[in-house]
Amino acid sequence: MSLIVAKFGGTSVADIPAIENAADKIAREAAAGHGIAVVVSAMAGVTNQLIEYCQDVSSLYDAREYDAIVSSGEQVTAGLMAIALQKRGLVARSWMGWQIPLCTTDTHAKARIERIDTDELKSQMSCGEIAVVAGFQGIATDNRITTLGRGGSDTTAVALAAALGAERCDIYTDVEGVYTTDPRIAPKARMLPKISYEEMLEMASVGAKVLQTRSVEMAMKERVAVQVLSSFGNAIGSELPGTLLVDEREVMEKHVVNGITYSRDDAKVTLRKLPDIPGIAARIFGPLSDAGINVDVIVQNISPDSHVTDITFTVPEGDLTKALDVLNKTVAGIDDKIETVYSTDVVKISVIGIGMRSHTGVAQTMFQTLSEKGINIQLISTSEIKISVLIHKDYLELAVRSLHTAYGLDEEVEG
Amino acid sequence: MSLIVAKFGGTSVADIPAIENAADKIAREAAAGHGIAVVVSAMAGVTNQLIEYCQDVSSLYDAREYDAIVSSGEQVTAGLMAIALQKRGLVARSWMGWQIPLCTTDTHAKARIERIDTDELKSQMSCGEIAVVAGFQGIATDNRITTLGRGGSDTTAVALAAALGAERCDIYTDVEGVYTTDPRIAPKARMLPKISYEEMLEMASVGAKVLQTRSVEMAMKERVAVQVLSSFGNAIGSELPGTLLVDEREVMEKHVVNGITYSRDDAKVTLRKLPDIPGIAARIFGPLSDAGINVDVIVQNISPDSHVTDITFTVPEGDLTKALDVLNKTVAGIDDKIETVYSTDVVKISVIGIGMRSHTGVAQTMFQTLSEKGINIQLISTSEIKISVLIHKDYLELAVRSLHTAYGLDEEVEG
Repeated sequence: MSLIVAKFGGTSVADIPAIENAADKIAREAAAGHGIAVVVSAMAGVTNQLIEYCQDVSSLYDAREYDAIVSSGEQVTAGLMAIALQKRGLVARSWMGWQIPLCTTDTHAKARIERIDTDELKSQMSCGEIAVVAGFQGIATDNRITTLGRGGSDTTAVALAAALGAERCDIYTDVEGVYTTDPRIAPKARMLPKISYEEMLEMASVGAKVLQTRSVEMAMKERVAVQVLSSFGNAIGSELPGTLLVDEREVMEKHVVNGITYSRDDAKVTLRKLPDIPGIAARIFGPLSDAGINVDVIVQNISPDSHVTDITFTVPEGDLTKALDVLNKTVAGIDDKIETVYSTDVVKISVIGIGMRSHTGVAQTMFQTLSEKGINIQLISTSEIKISVLIHKDYLELAVRSLHTAYGLDEEVEG
Repeated sequence: MSLIVAKFGGTSVADIPAIENAADKIAREAAAGHGIAVVVSAMAGVTNQLIEYCQDVSSLYDAREYDAIVSSGEQVTAGLMAIALQKRGLVARSWMGWQIPLCTTDTHAKARIERIDTDELKSQMSCGEIAVVAGFQGIATDNRITTLGRGGSDTTAVALAAALGAERCDIYTDVEGVYTTDPRIAPKARMLPKISYEEMLEMASVGAKVLQTRSVEMAMKERVAVQVLSSFGNAIGSELPGTLLVDEREVMEKHVVNGITYSRDDAKVTLRKLPDIPGIAARIFGPLSDAGINVDVIVQNISPDSHVTDITFTVPEGDLTKALDVLNKTVAGIDDKIETVYSTDVVKISVIGIGMRSHTGVAQTMFQTLSEKGINIQLISTSEIKISVLIHKDYLELAVRSLHTAYGLDEEVEG
């Protein structure tokens, strides 16, 4: 019997009608003869409410207690989903992380999955029982509940699919699949029937919030066939209506670039009049790293004549205040002439495609397209299959649409 | 070090400010040098909301899933309470039923506690850690969550106090203690500093909803010194401001009767023209018992001349429809002349006191008092330390106040 893992998160289990709708889909998969493990998130607003309770009691809450509290959201959905499936004549039961057990590290609130003991799960599933697994949660060696960080249910689903040797892991979401870019910005965006793990990983890491980055990493490592598809409408995973994450050899290289993403969550920081001495970058970025701030795109302007230099980089906008605090302390110990300026009026646009590895001129197309529209590029950063630029936020939509056309991604009009 | 179990339920943990208030009390107990295990209920409305979710999905929900869902309420409060205690500089952690483990029978939704393994709990408490235990929940042998039935957190607290050999089990509630009767009805009601287990048991079973009946049974069996006290105001359990449940030898027998309770939850059923033949009562009450309906006060009028008889009894008002269904089927198989009449316009008034065992005339005082007020007694039932009568509901307040005065329970006016 083929085995499928189906994950329902966010709006797919927002309320009782949504849970019933998801149960209908699972019932159809079961009727088609598939063995099924379902992974569920918390109902709409529940996780945020629980986090708010923690913060109301103490801003310095214990992560172990936070995990005990917040994991209850998925516990409730799992029980309700099991009841909804039973109502449809199916045999089903809920599984909490500690019941499976799904063993994690003890880094509470952001634990990593170490091992899933599937013996009992498999034994009960072999009799046709549908396993409804509470996502996002596990258990540490000290017998206490852990959670995997926001969006962790995707990782639960992929890890479970790997551990069970599932044929596929269907991630039901509020979008129909993975698009070449955000259809709300570029109406000509197309849904991709397939995308490579590598491309999906780059897209997830630069703002396409379809899948949690870690779940994509795990899918790539474990070679799990993940399918992203819509929880609305009637389609079920076995009809393959969404986007399938596959090995890059299985992707038809019709386009050099497969996706254009953007992120509004970055802030740009510039340090001016830095003494141009060896090790200055390490002295600046070391303390930021120690403070847990993730610095992205870095550019240094070298000015050999004046013995001073400028360094510009981005940090997550949410970390800006903390980053400025750290920087002020750092530069105070170097030179009091150093000036710190920052801007949040920026967006990061990225073009992504495994075709870049074998094609040249991809960056040039990007620079020329933006130049033709009069859009100034403030920073550039590249990786093997991605080029990112920082531009003024006013040009976000124009840049995305222009690049979508320039890379030949616009939907072909029929006839 | 003396060990205290403190239980906070209902309004005592209704919201974050209430949890903070409870944490203040615990901190004061800790400062007084007591080792403490705290038992908590769910926050206000949470349990009802979760039950509603279950019912929304299916009226025939699986009790095992119900338990997984509903137990999450106490899980959240336990975590929040632990955080609130940590904020006060105390070492504290939450314990779910499965973590202790608190082992129960596998009768889901109404499980009974079988064993509490306190080894790990004791080991961590011995280092000064406050254990915050999620009430109402346990774990069955199949590794699934169970719950103890509504009000089960009281039982968790008493069982834990017994298992830990605690000096006292403080039950914080929304009343200041156990009263001679309901102060809302009889303003002269007095709080009892002590009450015997037996009296409390009778009071709990006839409508004084201060403690769950099973928790009192357990306290009596295990000889746990339970104290009922208010969660409002500043008093803490060690100051002994509430009502202490004690062995009857420790109660000063100032009054023959110590409590007057009432219940609005009964319905009266009369079967008329029953053939007066041996075994008729068994044929009537057997099927009701099989249907799980708890029949109380039973009276049979014998009429030897006509060979027919009447039987009157009470059932919980919530079971009336089901009881009438069962009765109709039963009498149809006996005689089609039998008439079934019922009324919900009744209340049950009970006077309770261990002094009854050694005093006569207690019933006579009751009958005479009600008679003087022109209140008709419809049914009478007695036990060793309790006399209950059924009267028309209109006379509830008058009857309670009159009996309170007649048995010398009115608060003495100072001066």
